[in-house]
Amino acid sequence: MNKPALSPDQVIETLNWRYATKAFDPDRKIPDDVWHALEQSLVLAPSSFGMQPWKFFVVRNPQIRQQLVEDSFNQTKVAEASHLVVLAIKKDISADDVPDYVDRVSAVRNVPKEKLEGLANLIKGYLQEPPFPLQPDKWSAKQVYLALGFFLYSAALLGIDTCAIEGFVPAKYDEILGLAEQGYSAVVLCVAGYRAEGDQTADQAKVRYETDRVVAYID
Amino acid sequence: MNKPALSPDQVIETLNWRYATKAFDPDRKIPDDVWHALEQSLVLAPSSFGMQPWKFFVVRNPQIRQQLVEDSFNQTKVAEASHLVVLAIKKDISADDVPDYVDRVSAVRNVPKEKLEGLANLIKGYLQEPPFPLQPDKWSAKQVYLALGFFLYSAALLGIDTCAIEGFVPAKYDEILGLAEQGYSAVVLCVAGYRAEGDQTADQAKVRYETDRVVAYID
Repeated sequence: MNKPALSPDQVIETLNWRYATKAFDPDRKIPDDVWHALEQSLVLAPSSFGMQPWKFFVVRNPQIRQQLVEDSFNQTKVAEASHLVVLAIKKDISADDVPDYVDRVSAVRNVPKEKLEGLANLIKGYLQEPPFPLQPDKWSAKQVYLALGFFLYSAALLGIDTCAIEGFVPAKYDEILGLAEQGYSAVVLCVAGYRAEGDQTADQAKVRYETDRVVAYID
Repeated sequence: MNKPALSPDQVIETLNWRYATKAFDPDRKIPDDVWHALEQSLVLAPSSFGMQPWKFFVVRNPQIRQQLVEDSFNQTKVAEASHLVVLAIKKDISADDVPDYVDRVSAVRNVPKEKLEGLANLIKGYLQEPPFPLQPDKWSAKQVYLALGFFLYSAALLGIDTCAIEGFVPAKYDEILGLAEQGYSAVVLCVAGYRAEGDQTADQAKVRYETDRVVAYID
């Protein structure tokens, strides 16, 4: 890609089109090729050091999705939207996770592992003796929110409606989906699909503070 | 917008084009219209309840940017890239911040404040007695990372190079830029502009784990 994919106006138009969809059409499913791009948006999202301290669980079992509604403050969209993704951190990320990552760098870039010792030691040092207070799970959760941003954004580009959801009980999700035993913990959900006809939030104006309240220039 | 802005393949192409740029061309500046769209990507990013617990500081003063290099582990791109944004949380967000937000909802949607009491009480309740442990500054920081995701993504669409930066000393930034006294705290940086010719990272393969390691289906 040598030229921009969109103009500045198209970017703003896309961002204004997106909204937190409240009601989804339970009968419309995201086509496979579109879902593939959404999934790759999570896979290709950047993270600190490229460590990807995460895993994304796509819940397709309808009975389980129905069961999760109760642990999502009765938000039925958890069961009704085309897709439900549970974005989870890998718990207690640490220097012990570095060798796996460096092995992957070595394989993808075809670089001998011996030449990656500097990189390995840099990341290990950061995680073992961070230059400022660092709580691994909080750090990983922030990376997951960045990936969530990529997912929401791709959806808007592809004409897919979404809603990110913090209103759920992580401990119940971890238990029901078997995340805890695998070393993961749910931090945020996202449903994706198509808005229901008559979703009342679709036509509401987007509420944002004035730009000069949230952006400041230091000259 | 009734049809998708991009095809699934174009989305994946855009995501693959993006990389964490190490060296920027100090002579190339982002045009005003492109910068405007990048800035609006921060303004229009979603956040929990729409609370926007953040502020984005764009540092344009060259002397200050040079000074910040030292507090950024000597990463000269902090001074060299076209733009430097400091993404900050509003510290100690609480129920006290709700009335301002509800006033804004009232103004933008032209709804009497009396009709927004339910919304106000919902958000206040969540912040005062959250259904699960909630540390306000950590919560706000996660929202900021989502906004960072929107910024990085817009940049890729617009052909702008970026690098998100966690390697800096937040306390020094807060002090030098006067954030602390305004009730804000820096959580992450982003530089944006154009890669330097010969930036060695540009041609390196993107390293990601295999999709089936980071995406799981629960059927």
